[in-house]
Formats: sequence, C-alpha cells, structure tokens
Amino acid sequence: MKLTILGCYAATPRTFTNPTSQVLEIKNRLFLIDCGEGTQVQLRKNKIKFSKINQIFISHLHGDHFFGLIGLISTFSLLNRNNDLHIYGPKGIKEIIKLQLRLSNSWPNFELHFHELENTESEVVYEDDKVLVKTIPLKHRIYTNGFLFQEKLDERKLNIAAVQEYEIERCYYQNIKNGKDILLDDGRLIPNNLLTFNPEKPKSYAFCSDTCYTETILPIIDKVDVLYHESTFLQSEETLAAKTMHTTAIQAATIAKRAQVTQLVLGHYSTRYDRIEVFKEEASTIFSNVLLADDGKTFEF
Amino acid sequence: MKLTILGCYAATPRTFTNPTSQVLEIKNRLFLIDCGEGTQVQLRKNKIKFSKINQIFISHLHGDHFFGLIGLISTFSLLNRNNDLHIYGPKGIKEIIKLQLRLSNSWPNFELHFHELENTESEVVYEDDKVLVKTIPLKHRIYTNGFLFQEKLDERKLNIAAVQEYEIERCYYQNIKNGKDILLDDGRLIPNNLLTFNPEKPKSYAFCSDTCYTETILPIIDKVDVLYHESTFLQSEETLAAKTMHTTAIQAATIAKRAQVTQLVLGHYSTRYDRIEVFKEEASTIFSNVLLADDGKTFEF
Repeated sequence: MKLTILGCYAATPRTFTNPTSQVLEIKNRLFLIDCGEGTQVQLRKNKIKFSKINQIFISHLHGDHFFGLIGLISTFSLLNRNNDLHIYGPKGIKEIIKLQLRLSNSWPNFELHFHELENTESEVVYEDDKVLVKTIPLKHRIYTNGFLFQEKLDERKLNIAAVQEYEIERCYYQNIKNGKDILLDDGRLIPNNLLTFNPEKPKSYAFCSDTCYTETILPIIDKVDVLYHESTFLQSEETLAAKTMHTTAIQAATIAKRAQVTQLVLGHYSTRYDRIEVFKEEASTIFSNVLLADDGKTFEF
Repeated sequence: MKLTILGCYAATPRTFTNPTSQVLEIKNRLFLIDCGEGTQVQLRKNKIKFSKINQIFISHLHGDHFFGLIGLISTFSLLNRNNDLHIYGPKGIKEIIKLQLRLSNSWPNFELHFHELENTESEVVYEDDKVLVKTIPLKHRIYTNGFLFQEKLDERKLNIAAVQEYEIERCYYQNIKNGKDILLDDGRLIPNNLLTFNPEKPKSYAFCSDTCYTETILPIIDKVDVLYHESTFLQSEETLAAKTMHTTAIQAATIAKRAQVTQLVLGHYSTRYDRIEVFKEEASTIFSNVLLADDGKTFEF
C-alpha cells in the first residue's frame, strides 16, 4: 500500500503548498482521493500515470478538495483517454462537471460515470475482487465523507513442499487455496492447514478530511492500519477549530488512540503556522505513532 | 502600460508552463485577462496584489482560459475581500460560478457582478474616466471575444512657466487643462496652446486569443500599440491550426502587419514544440516587431 501526498494544506493553493489531493496505490490499483486546484500538475510532478487513475473519490464540495477535477477530466480528454472514469462524490458534482463540459462544448471521448453520494450512514461505494471502499460520514460545514479503503483477504498460500510430498495433482490447487481439505486416493483426509499458509493480513487505509472531532467514526475506522486525519489547527486554535468544524492535532490523535489504529498521518494544515512539526509534537502527547503528510511525500505501509 | 504574463501556453497546465492568464496595468488599474487553472498561484508568484483586481475579462469557456476563476473567487472570499468584483465573459459563466458557490455553501462576502456577453459585434463592455474596453469578436470553436483596452485622451498638461508669466490664478487651471483660452484682466485673450502642452498619446492594447486567422478583426485593432495574438502552431501545422481554429505564427504576423500595429506579442503556444523562439523566427519573416510572451515575463509599453 503506497500513499502519495499531492497536496495537504487547507484553504487555498499557494506558491509552495497545494490543497488536498492524494493517490492511494493498493493491490495495483490507483485511487485518487480529492482533487484540489493544481492536482493535475502535482500528478505530473510526482510522475503518476494519468491513465492508471480510473476512480476518483471526492470528500466534499469545498473548493480546496475538488476545484482541480474539471481540469483533470479535460486533460484526460486531451490526452485521448479511453478508459471509463468513475467519480464518487456528493450530490451536485455531476451537475458542476456536466455544465462546464456542455458550455465548453468538449464532451470527453471516454465514459464518465458519476456515483453521487447523499447517504449519512457508511455505505460500500466501490468493490472489486481485491478492494472494498466504504464511506466514512464526517461532520463538517457541508455534506462530507471520508473513505475507508480495505484490502480483501487473499486466498490461502499454497505450501508447495507439502502438496508435492502428498503428490497432490495441480487440478486441486485452487480448491486448496480456497481452504478445502483434500481426500487422498489412499483414503487419508489431509486438513487444509497442512497444505497452506495464512495469507497476508489485509491492510486498510482511512481518509478523514474535513471534519470536526467526532467519535461517530470510531466503529468504522476501528483498528485500521493507517488513518489520515485532518488537523487543520493546533490546540491554541481549539475554539476556531470548533467554529469552522475542523480538528486540532490533539483531537486527531485522540481519535487515532480511541480507534486503536496502527499509524496516524496528519494533514490539512492551516498555512498560518510556520512549521508543520508542531502538529506532530502536539499529537505525540496523546498517540505515539504519528507521521506528517507533506506535498510530494510518499508513505509505504 | 504594463503587461504581466501569468500563463501563455495552450491546452493544459504542466509542471513549468501555465494556461492563459495575464494582468494589464493601465492608468493604475489592474485588469485580469483570462484565468486558467493555477492563476491564483501565478498571481502570488508575480507578487500581484489580489485586492487591486476588480475586473476580470474571460475570452471563452474552454478550460485553459477560465478553470482558475472559481478558485480565485473563493480565495478572494477567504482573504476577506470587500471590493466589488466584475466579471466579463460569455453567457453561461454566471451559472458555472454560482452553481459552485451554492453547492459549497460559500457565497462571497463581496458583491459579484457578472456581465455576460453574447453579442457577435464589437461592443463597449467597460468604461471609466481613463479607460475604455471593447470586445473583439473572434472566430474559434465556441463563442469567443478578444478585448481591446484603450486609454482615453488625458486632459492637456499645464505649462507652469506660461501660466505664471501671465499671472493666471489657480482657480482657472482646470479650465485651461480642459482646453479653454483665457481672457486676462487687461483684455488680452491668451490662446490655450500657449498655456498647455499636448497630453501623451493614449495607448491601446488588444488581446486576441483563441482564434483562427480572421481579417474581420482588422478594423477593431487598427494601429493599436500592442497586439497580443495567439500563435498556437507553426506553419508546418497550418492544417491542424485551421482544423482546431487556431493561428500560426505567420498568420498572427500577417494580422499585425495588416492592422499596422506597433508591436506584436505572440503567445498561446502548443507545448509540442521544444523552444518558443521558432515562433518569433517565423513571424519575423512577415512583421519585424515581434516579442514572445512567456510565463512570468513583463512588458512595459
């Protein structure tokens, strides 16, 4: 699982900081999460192949999370993309994109599928044979979702030495990987655990931005491997955080601790602070395993 | 008159090139012309004060000319702008901007005035005591206007030595600057030309992008001081230029020559070419006074 931060600062794009966007690579799929202005340039700078992005998840319709989407779609079109593109985001996103495509008379030459969200309960929005994506309903000034990306449990791993020892034919391998026991010709029943190893534990990543401190998300993000949680402010701006429905570093760490996650990644920093290390300093007083997102940074989990 | 090029490349923003946007400073006013994605970052990089921009002119609704507008408006709002903002652009631009402001529930705290254009004849769209702006109807794949910025003739300049010699009182100065002759107490009539100098010749700037080669614009841009004309392609791509309704460098130079402009500035380059100097080389075979726009470049006329 590889996370590339394209942008992780709040409010407006600036000379050296970018609004929210990130790419999650999981089981050889690339998921784009949020798409602030300038995301397409950040994708180029980070050498991410445009054609590998087939799913885009938009948390909410504040500009710093989606103003780059129409430009990215237009560029996909100019690059003669063929693949279908799926966009998951709040109701209204389809109208915004289609209006601009209509007025510029430049309908893309690929299929554009909108999956508009309006449910306030967590729901599965994407699923294939390897990965499942659920919404994490957040509490912000407008309708907002985080997203939980879960790897599915792989099939069991064949113990090659064992299957050869029992002289089991190849045609039974898939059954074994699916967990079946095997009846040999001599009548012996070989239990599956002698023929296989456990698959790797599936990993999970939760993206939570933007939101105020809310414990309603705890059951959904319980024990995830990596939690990206917004921490727009420091504790000194706690009142402002509450008023604008954002989170402080201490609050993000509290959520990480209560959800018993393995790793917390902080982001969505207000640009009022000179250095982002202070976010880690404050969060670390509550939760030990804290990393700081920054534009262009990658994390492998 | 000072022109700052924020972006002058066609199609998509890239790591080192930006889509169309420029700032014209004329008579202490700042006019923003077009607003491709990333314009607000380019404004910051070029140290242009956001609060001094009160008029934005949008040529057409292709993304590389206006996808940065909604982000700029949002940033104005976050910066607690108070001044009214006037936007001049094709019909539909109001719907695009208002839809996004409504869905993000972030209506700005300043007045936003839309001046939607649909006339196919040149018309005056802005006028104050110093400056006049007219549309230049262009021929492109969708409804498009260039813009002609004209300084108005200043009042005449007082010849201080002369008015002192004739002992003329201060209360008559404004009449003299307005061109009036003066009757002295001793009965002598002093003609205005003895009391004043001619004002500076008013300057004019024509922005023409995007368009195919069209001579219909010649009467409107006749003898302007500076013509910015798109030259997306070189002559080797003449067929592609015609097909996409763009212009070659040679064609832009031909327009400059026929309109007898003083200075031609080329821009809106396709990124297919390694160096932009070739645009100047080709254009210079037709018209001698050619400058190349480039991102971050300023011109004082």
